[in-house]
Amino acid sequence: MIIKINGVQKEYANEASLFEIAKDNEVKNALAAKVDGNLVEMRSKLDGKDHEIEFVTFQDKEGKKLYRHTTSHILAQAIKTIYPTSKLAIGPAIDDGFYYDIDFKTPITTENLEAIEQEMKKIIKANYPLERFELPRDEAIAYMKKFGEDYKVELINDLPEDAVISFYKQGDFVDLCAGPHIPSTGYIKAFKLLSITGAYWRGSEKNKMLTRIYGTAFDNKQDLADFLQMQEEAKKRDHNKLGRELKIFTTNEYIGQGLPLLMPKGQKLFQILSRFVEDEEERRGYMRTKTPYMAKSDLYKLSGHWDHYQDGMFILGDETKDEEVYALRPMTCPFQYMVYKADLKSYKDLPCRYGETSTLFRNESSGEMHGLIRVRQFTISEGHLILRPDQLEEEFKQCLELARFMLKITGLADDVSYRFSRWDPNDKVKYIQQPEVWAKAESTMENLLNHLGVKYSTGIGEAAFYGPKLDIQVKNVYGKEDTLITIQVDMFEAERFDMYYIDENGEKVRPYIIHRTSIGCYERTMALMIEKFAGAFPVWCAPVQAKILALTDRSADYCNDLVRKLAAVGIRAESDTRNETLGYKIRSAQMEKIPYILVVGDKEMDENVVAVRRRNEGDLGKMDFDAFVKRVNEDVSTFKLD
Amino acid sequence: MIIKINGVQKEYANEASLFEIAKDNEVKNALAAKVDGNLVEMRSKLDGKDHEIEFVTFQDKEGKKLYRHTTSHILAQAIKTIYPTSKLAIGPAIDDGFYYDIDFKTPITTENLEAIEQEMKKIIKANYPLERFELPRDEAIAYMKKFGEDYKVELINDLPEDAVISFYKQGDFVDLCAGPHIPSTGYIKAFKLLSITGAYWRGSEKNKMLTRIYGTAFDNKQDLADFLQMQEEAKKRDHNKLGRELKIFTTNEYIGQGLPLLMPKGQKLFQILSRFVEDEEERRGYMRTKTPYMAKSDLYKLSGHWDHYQDGMFILGDETKDEEVYALRPMTCPFQYMVYKADLKSYKDLPCRYGETSTLFRNESSGEMHGLIRVRQFTISEGHLILRPDQLEEEFKQCLELARFMLKITGLADDVSYRFSRWDPNDKVKYIQQPEVWAKAESTMENLLNHLGVKYSTGIGEAAFYGPKLDIQVKNVYGKEDTLITIQVDMFEAERFDMYYIDENGEKVRPYIIHRTSIGCYERTMALMIEKFAGAFPVWCAPVQAKILALTDRSADYCNDLVRKLAAVGIRAESDTRNETLGYKIRSAQMEKIPYILVVGDKEMDENVVAVRRRNEGDLGKMDFDAFVKRVNEDVSTFKLD
Repeated sequence: MIIKINGVQKEYANEASLFEIAKDNEVKNALAAKVDGNLVEMRSKLDGKDHEIEFVTFQDKEGKKLYRHTTSHILAQAIKTIYPTSKLAIGPAIDDGFYYDIDFKTPITTENLEAIEQEMKKIIKANYPLERFELPRDEAIAYMKKFGEDYKVELINDLPEDAVISFYKQGDFVDLCAGPHIPSTGYIKAFKLLSITGAYWRGSEKNKMLTRIYGTAFDNKQDLADFLQMQEEAKKRDHNKLGRELKIFTTNEYIGQGLPLLMPKGQKLFQILSRFVEDEEERRGYMRTKTPYMAKSDLYKLSGHWDHYQDGMFILGDETKDEEVYALRPMTCPFQYMVYKADLKSYKDLPCRYGETSTLFRNESSGEMHGLIRVRQFTISEGHLILRPDQLEEEFKQCLELARFMLKITGLADDVSYRFSRWDPNDKVKYIQQPEVWAKAESTMENLLNHLGVKYSTGIGEAAFYGPKLDIQVKNVYGKEDTLITIQVDMFEAERFDMYYIDENGEKVRPYIIHRTSIGCYERTMALMIEKFAGAFPVWCAPVQAKILALTDRSADYCNDLVRKLAAVGIRAESDTRNETLGYKIRSAQMEKIPYILVVGDKEMDENVVAVRRRNEGDLGKMDFDAFVKRVNEDVSTFKLD
Repeated sequence: MIIKINGVQKEYANEASLFEIAKDNEVKNALAAKVDGNLVEMRSKLDGKDHEIEFVTFQDKEGKKLYRHTTSHILAQAIKTIYPTSKLAIGPAIDDGFYYDIDFKTPITTENLEAIEQEMKKIIKANYPLERFELPRDEAIAYMKKFGEDYKVELINDLPEDAVISFYKQGDFVDLCAGPHIPSTGYIKAFKLLSITGAYWRGSEKNKMLTRIYGTAFDNKQDLADFLQMQEEAKKRDHNKLGRELKIFTTNEYIGQGLPLLMPKGQKLFQILSRFVEDEEERRGYMRTKTPYMAKSDLYKLSGHWDHYQDGMFILGDETKDEEVYALRPMTCPFQYMVYKADLKSYKDLPCRYGETSTLFRNESSGEMHGLIRVRQFTISEGHLILRPDQLEEEFKQCLELARFMLKITGLADDVSYRFSRWDPNDKVKYIQQPEVWAKAESTMENLLNHLGVKYSTGIGEAAFYGPKLDIQVKNVYGKEDTLITIQVDMFEAERFDMYYIDENGEKVRPYIIHRTSIGCYERTMALMIEKFAGAFPVWCAPVQAKILALTDRSADYCNDLVRKLAAVGIRAESDTRNETLGYKIRSAQMEKIPYILVVGDKEMDENVVAVRRRNEGDLGKMDFDAFVKRVNEDVSTFKLD
């Protein structure tokens, strides 16, 4: 048979195994192979026909997944050995690792993990091959019942009539599994069990709470060590932990998941950012709107959300019973369109740049909620520009410049990547077939990106049906990528909403629309900033810029006066006049990550100065009020990051 | 029989009529009487026993209602005379007048009103007595069927089994009516039909749309004329009309009633007011929160809203089907309590003054919606102070001072009245029986109000079950009274939410709470300001403070630069560089009610000055940039009202 590998064709005996072909091509540690694009196990037999083969190793995303999935089976085997009465639920690979959900007779704790790891090491050392076999439904159920695996029985019962029911055996342990797997347990070079949490069977609160054990695996010990250290570092910066410790936000079981409460410090950060964005956008020619958070179903029927996004919306009322049904808005677009449409526009009125500090609602499931990043209610610096087609280049440029300015001042500029999503001319179903309109808009964007030297990747067929877009992606502290900012061009939606302007000849013309944000969702941006700065916000947006410590009771009033004097010139300060030692107060202010610490004792009062310590710079010595104000104002006006 | 009237007892013959007794006591134009507190018609016969009598005239609220209700019957009689095929629905008295809903075969227009008024005058001149009679249900239905009055038949059918079914006859016209009425049609001295609108039968969109004719009546022509003039004046200031003309807000049929969209000028006003309030509250020691707009039903079950206010809330989900049911919040209280509870508080931490620019939602029926005043979603300057009982006097005082400061700067201070709502010690069901706690709190408030010279009325038994309150009431341009600001003291609710602080002795103690607003609901306050100033907002909060008019094209760039220079010093300006005459541009700026109009031509450019016109003051001559900035800043810093 002829095998094409790495672009080279070679002839092999018809009986040649994948292992032999890998060895012949010097592929070490092949975990699986892609035969003509289909993922197959190394143990699979080739059919003697010609094929193109690509080997999958740990370096590939799919390789990591296989590797970690097999490790989850090793975990399960170890558990069943130590805790024979435990029942297995599911054990998939996930980003950065794997987990297994288990129903223990007596729940275990993290203290038990080491013993489990020891047992896993034995299984790895034994180097059991992973052998697949299939059973008819009845036999499969009887087989799992024999082992007392009630959850597996339920899983089999839920499989479609015609499903293939497969198992994987390693040593004397068998698990229900669709596969594929790596060849044998001995392939695992480095692994670690990370944590234990509770998880409802099938994610529903109505079901039993199981024990979820998280772990990860790598193909060498150094990478595992690096990963663990990175995780440790990330944990310290995790906004969901640090944000609570710094009293940025809290959550409450009565209020619900995905609905964080911003505490005074978090509200202050939100207020500083949102006011700044509002004012900056206004300087750049935006008009602001404030539109309602709900609308009748009529609006969403017009926009298409009712048919295509109803599950993601919070619905108020029941169409079968109520005269009027409302829904909380998942987006601002049609609301700002209605402001545009409230009066007649001429070509001279365009572009109309509408901005709104806009609250949106998405009905996501409880399991997906995370701190300030995955929430059910969030506030975005929303905006829609209504423009003439000839204004696209200039307006897209300004949107991009504004977004990049915001990335710079929030300190996130170095952590982002750009993705340009284009249409697919061959997708006749998704895309409105006006090639010249698409070509013009996309080349305008492309030229501008190249001109500005923006590095970006391209996704063909990733554009929305109404236009191309630019996404700015950012990774959180655990490496998980999210979209922070989108600039979406829209050549076609004005039609749906009957939006127009009157051109030079008195004719009605459809405008283009740009949907965009400048700083993104405030909650998400705040979360990323907490992680980026480990809570030590830049001076310009720090909720408290200066803490004034009274050395003794005698200087307490002076400190409080100073707070008021600083407030009068726009500097956010707090005093600490508690009856504690100076060392204690300094540590306390440092724990709060406040940029400036001022100390005032008798001497400073006499001299009318303050002793200034700057976060990351240490002691700056004594300075008078005006000098200190000047310093802070410099930090603010330059958006200094530290 | 002995009749006590105006505190004096007199003897009358047992057969004496109410007319005779009125005449003997020189009561002119008595419309009805209260016999031992029960309202009866003048035509009613006394039973010869002793009674206390009070006569009701047009001067009384009840008298106006009777008088106008009878006028609505006169309207109905006139309609049936002119349009015999029309069918009558209902015709009650309302504030300031009456209406009648009628099903016309061919709908009429305002042009038909004069002919109807002429017919009404004939009926008044004929001075028909209004005679009451009752019929058994079957006869009543047959009787109304005979006249083709289908709506009346439906009304009778809906009456309870044992209801008395009464009719009133005047001339040959009979109407189903519970009464009471005034003695005869000739009593009506002055009336006017005001307008025609559509109204659904029984207020439901599922029913037929009827024609509603509004009218009013007075006991003399001068008062009617004054009323009509006041209405004319009010219409010009009506925020629901003027607010749209000035592009403060708009509404949209797809979005729904009671959900106004703030246009850029309205958003700017909202932004100016809310930022001002936020900063002013912070200066006064408030911390700000930002809490979610929805919560699980659990929270409302804890707060009691689920049982007592569910109809007024927007519910998300269905308790019979969904795992979790959410509701949009109608108030902020428990959300801010959860912020308080997020960490342990000591007596030194109190008072905690929490403020929030908080959006709330009330599920009111469509019929009640009005402009910015009756809405389904609104934003309030919400706040809850958590305090030690010994801090009540100082904190209540500060709340009142803050509210009065806001009333002063919004120009509403002269239009308000104060109402102090106290408990009723005899109402053992409503009120928590701790007399000494009530006495202490109420006397603290009372002493303070008296000390500050606040004039107020008192309502016994109007307090909430958990504490006394002070309401600040304001009348809109039509004289309709609404509550603008409430300061609600709460001695008992901390218990329900398990809120406490640790006192000097290390013991847990329940705090008091003050629920309060400083400026009220922004939408309502904005509506009242629009009406108060007829859209000409004070300089400090005018969305546009200055309009800069280019005399010719040559000064256009200069004007645009000036706008930017003014923005840099915090002054909100716009330029008008259109190719129009100066007169046109001035009128245009005046229509927009902009306080300052600056004109720039060649001469002004050369001299580096602007020619300034001030709203209400006229031409102020030329001044340079700094002088103009100084003038505006003075208006702003003094909150000058004009």
